[in-house]
Amino acid sequence: MPNANAAGKSARKKENTMTIVEVSPRDGFPEICNGLSTEDKIHYINKLSETGLKKIECASFTHPRLLPEGYDAEKLVSGIAKKPEVTYVGLVPNEIGCRRALVTKIDELLVLLSASDTFNRINIGKSLRESLNKVLPTLLDAAARHGRSVRIYLMTAFGCPYTGRVRPEEVAELLLKLSYMGASEVVLVDSTGMADPKSAKELIRALLELKLDIQLAVHFHNTRGTALANCVAAYDEGIRIFDASLGGMSNTPYGVSELDIGYWNVPTEDIVHLFEAMGIQTGIDLEKLLDCVRLAEKMAGKPLPGHILRARPATRITEIPRHLKEPRLLD
Amino acid sequence: MPNANAAGKSARKKENTMTIVEVSPRDGFPEICNGLSTEDKIHYINKLSETGLKKIECASFTHPRLLPEGYDAEKLVSGIAKKPEVTYVGLVPNEIGCRRALVTKIDELLVLLSASDTFNRINIGKSLRESLNKVLPTLLDAAARHGRSVRIYLMTAFGCPYTGRVRPEEVAELLLKLSYMGASEVVLVDSTGMADPKSAKELIRALLELKLDIQLAVHFHNTRGTALANCVAAYDEGIRIFDASLGGMSNTPYGVSELDIGYWNVPTEDIVHLFEAMGIQTGIDLEKLLDCVRLAEKMAGKPLPGHILRARPATRITEIPRHLKEPRLLD
Repeated sequence: MPNANAAGKSARKKENTMTIVEVSPRDGFPEICNGLSTEDKIHYINKLSETGLKKIECASFTHPRLLPEGYDAEKLVSGIAKKPEVTYVGLVPNEIGCRRALVTKIDELLVLLSASDTFNRINIGKSLRESLNKVLPTLLDAAARHGRSVRIYLMTAFGCPYTGRVRPEEVAELLLKLSYMGASEVVLVDSTGMADPKSAKELIRALLELKLDIQLAVHFHNTRGTALANCVAAYDEGIRIFDASLGGMSNTPYGVSELDIGYWNVPTEDIVHLFEAMGIQTGIDLEKLLDCVRLAEKMAGKPLPGHILRARPATRITEIPRHLKEPRLLD
Repeated sequence: MPNANAAGKSARKKENTMTIVEVSPRDGFPEICNGLSTEDKIHYINKLSETGLKKIECASFTHPRLLPEGYDAEKLVSGIAKKPEVTYVGLVPNEIGCRRALVTKIDELLVLLSASDTFNRINIGKSLRESLNKVLPTLLDAAARHGRSVRIYLMTAFGCPYTGRVRPEEVAELLLKLSYMGASEVVLVDSTGMADPKSAKELIRALLELKLDIQLAVHFHNTRGTALANCVAAYDEGIRIFDASLGGMSNTPYGVSELDIGYWNVPTEDIVHLFEAMGIQTGIDLEKLLDCVRLAEKMAGKPLPGHILRARPATRITEIPRHLKEPRLLD
């Protein structure tokens, strides 16, 4: 996995590349495409697999009573035409979900943890201490025994809506503990869009200075319009793995009604377009990706907030429409 | 006017401040709030004047046949309760508009020019050469005789949709010419949202290296979702004047139907929130600004794309709703 912050083995050579992790099948569908059939989800994931994406979060092994999208995780994973160059990820909220996931051919488990004890209790239903000392070791151990990798979401890494700012030292301490436990990829999640480029840089700098053998990724929410600016800042500091979601699709499991709007993820097509414009290789075919956006909008039955499908790449030359060949402001 | 790039007089002292130029009454109303009365516009501008904004583009002295919003410019300007600390700006497309503006109490004239000859011909109806050598000197001269300042929009400074990339050397040459003519403020306008943080930095660096006695401002469009990221990049390079529009309101005079979506300006409330979060003082009262967004949405009859009105500042602590005190993902 190309990542300049992973002990820097081949970091220099891959300085101008980045990896995008597509989260829309897991994070976007439940909210946007209500009542989608398993076959439609599989078709979409297979189409995504053709774009050059290297990692796709595709299913949630959650109890259907709590997160309804969990009902077809096994059927969905068994139906995907897996490509060897793509890592397929499934969310496991707890031991039961983990057991369900491990009998499928999913490559990687996604495990949740929050840097804020309050948020952890609300979102996961356990104290941070219990998640960290009991749940996580069990899941990491089970994954290792079955030869699956684990990515850990460190939620509210940039701030908690209920308790406010989270200090970089707290996040660093958690990251150290996760490193001791053998975690290989940790995602700094800006759960409610509280990050700004300055504080994001400060946190990332503090974490990279630990020089841990952990892949560090970022997952920004565009709640306050700052997600892409934060991605650019994170790249500047050395982050090379970015979570994004086609069209900006996003689920909002926090249920805070007053925050329910604007929880959009970084639209995959927008971040691919932006970083490629800056000479950074994503390895993704933008045109194929835009075909997936068209499919997603069809499934959602409405336009999604990503920009590039309609604005089209900045490099494209627009033909001058005939009615504009007449001057306009002249009088 | 605080600006770190203006010959650096008091630049060091004001390093952590920035000036925001509000463009919504000129750039947003015509498209968003169809059929707004002059009294409503005046009420809105007066309310904006109370927020701490130092410069407001409030009227267009255009021929109503070509840009209908020009019909009430004189009445509008005479009706504003002008505050001495605010600079009120009016667009003048040509000599006739300039004569109209100069008999009002408008403080500053806004003049258009494009870095691309093709775009200049389409948007202004003159060759770049004619605009530069005939129109501009006349307008600058008239403004000086009447004691009014001039801000010049250098459109397509970051790229032209019809001819592609504009080289920094071309923009630098134009800026030099504008400097010789006595222009005091030049706005680098990303007319169709083609800029990215890397190319924006390169252009701004090249221009600031000229060390001209010109205030340099930026005006980014969010066509491709990159406007705020570009603003952060521009600030990093030394820009201290940023155009923004309440709620993101924007007019799209280019009339290119396929580009008609997504021409939103940088929402003023979003950029104020972001830069204040990074410790940069805008001098603007965010709560008063959000009151103006509420008024604007009421006038527009629909929600505007700015984020902060609904997401609210990141610093605000959310109370835990009762139904969330029960755990969620646990099963």
